[in-house]
Amino acid sequence: MASSEFDRGIALHPDGGDGWYRGELGAGWQIGGGVNGGFLLAAAAHALRLELPQHPDPLSISGYYLSASRPGPYTVQTEVLRKGNSLSNATAVLHQQDENGQRVERLRVLAGYTDLATLDGEVGTAAVEPVLPPREQCIGVEHAPPQFIEQAALLQRFDLRLDPACVGWALGRPSGNGVIQGWFRLADGREPDPLALLLVADALPPVTFDLGRPGWAPTIELTVHLRALPAPGWLKVSHRTRNLAGGYFEEDCEIWDETGRLVAQSRQLARAPRVP
Amino acid sequence: MASSEFDRGIALHPDGGDGWYRGELGAGWQIGGGVNGGFLLAAAAHALRLELPQHPDPLSISGYYLSASRPGPYTVQTEVLRKGNSLSNATAVLHQQDENGQRVERLRVLAGYTDLATLDGEVGTAAVEPVLPPREQCIGVEHAPPQFIEQAALLQRFDLRLDPACVGWALGRPSGNGVIQGWFRLADGREPDPLALLLVADALPPVTFDLGRPGWAPTIELTVHLRALPAPGWLKVSHRTRNLAGGYFEEDCEIWDETGRLVAQSRQLARAPRVP
Repeated sequence: MASSEFDRGIALHPDGGDGWYRGELGAGWQIGGGVNGGFLLAAAAHALRLELPQHPDPLSISGYYLSASRPGPYTVQTEVLRKGNSLSNATAVLHQQDENGQRVERLRVLAGYTDLATLDGEVGTAAVEPVLPPREQCIGVEHAPPQFIEQAALLQRFDLRLDPACVGWALGRPSGNGVIQGWFRLADGREPDPLALLLVADALPPVTFDLGRPGWAPTIELTVHLRALPAPGWLKVSHRTRNLAGGYFEEDCEIWDETGRLVAQSRQLARAPRVP
Repeated sequence: MASSEFDRGIALHPDGGDGWYRGELGAGWQIGGGVNGGFLLAAAAHALRLELPQHPDPLSISGYYLSASRPGPYTVQTEVLRKGNSLSNATAVLHQQDENGQRVERLRVLAGYTDLATLDGEVGTAAVEPVLPPREQCIGVEHAPPQFIEQAALLQRFDLRLDPACVGWALGRPSGNGVIQGWFRLADGREPDPLALLLVADALPPVTFDLGRPGWAPTIELTVHLRALPAPGWLKVSHRTRNLAGGYFEEDCEIWDETGRLVAQSRQLARAPRVP
């Protein structure tokens, strides 16, 4: 039995062979009445890793969310599309059964997998690491709006310390900048790896909180690029949006490891919460 | 027969029903020995539009490029995953035959479709339109490196006027900023629509030119968010990269229409050309 709650959460068992797996979504990964989208992506990505032992890491992975997941059993059906020298492609479907026993698709995934340990060591990045106050000056999520905390069992799995400059929304004074950033690690100390980074890409409160919209923001699509293996330790995570329009917004996430390396970039398209 | 070369290029015929279509990739859409990735995405997106008359526009569409496409016949196999009130999801596979008559997958697509004309009219964007010199002060692609022009039949389909501030690479003096931007329209005056925007998202020279790397940059994955129906006229297009590392880079594209509306945002992950 895996010692970390995250690893137990994404544990899979072969289900009749042929690329099918089954698992159980724990109640602890819920947020707002559904299971967190980043967690679901990690579960599907885990199944693809099992099918691609030569290329165990997602380099780019896209998830489209078709219906809200609930705690309970699920299956993942995988299909390998191409095995290449440095990159393989695969797709996955995550299903659950509805109350009538009908199979319902929750998430469809398309990905390119590689072995991140073998990547060229060059780093020519122009991206700048977020400047965050020391963790002891940051704000835990216990200060989030009560209606947020109530529905967010997920947050107990995280040690999340938000930059005080972007938590004005907790005091009714959102900055309007469309930025939320902070320090992150899993509460039980489980070190980051590519699968955990998929969870982290969707772990902060919706960036629309900072625009004065405290409601839920269901993800339509989430694509994560894993750019390096993360070092052990704390992560710096930033979420940013620039274009809230037509009822949708994009949320760009960057994840930096403790050595100052940009290890993941993601973008999601989500439905904008209404102005309260 | 469609009067625009783009529409003729993505024309499809039902192929035995059941969501299959066939078309012909014209030689005019080649770049660097393969068919342009944005053009291929538009062809696959066209097939999905035919399957989803209630939701004709991609809201978010992700393409994973599995092998290099060649001019000639292709098929698109579509599957509708879910039909919702405001959003439907579907997947598409674009195939060609290899020299032995074997079917080879070129592109796998996953998408959420909507009717962009019905979106909420709110625009709360913080994104700022690129500042470009007037078109007559911009630079046509006839000044690109000869080895680029030779392999880029594609460019003759475009009226592309690049900002002189980001074409130092044409004179051997790349800025190193990782930005290329300019004015765009189709050479035959065909007005922009959501399918054409998919082409535009991959139409500028690779942003790595501006980093002093004039080689090809094959796309691994391209996701486009269509955020509004574009107005007729010229488009402003910007490409930017921040993180070239480990042999890959992301390329973020924004497309603005002539009314100053941000109509599409895209990100691709591509293989970085080597330093010459």
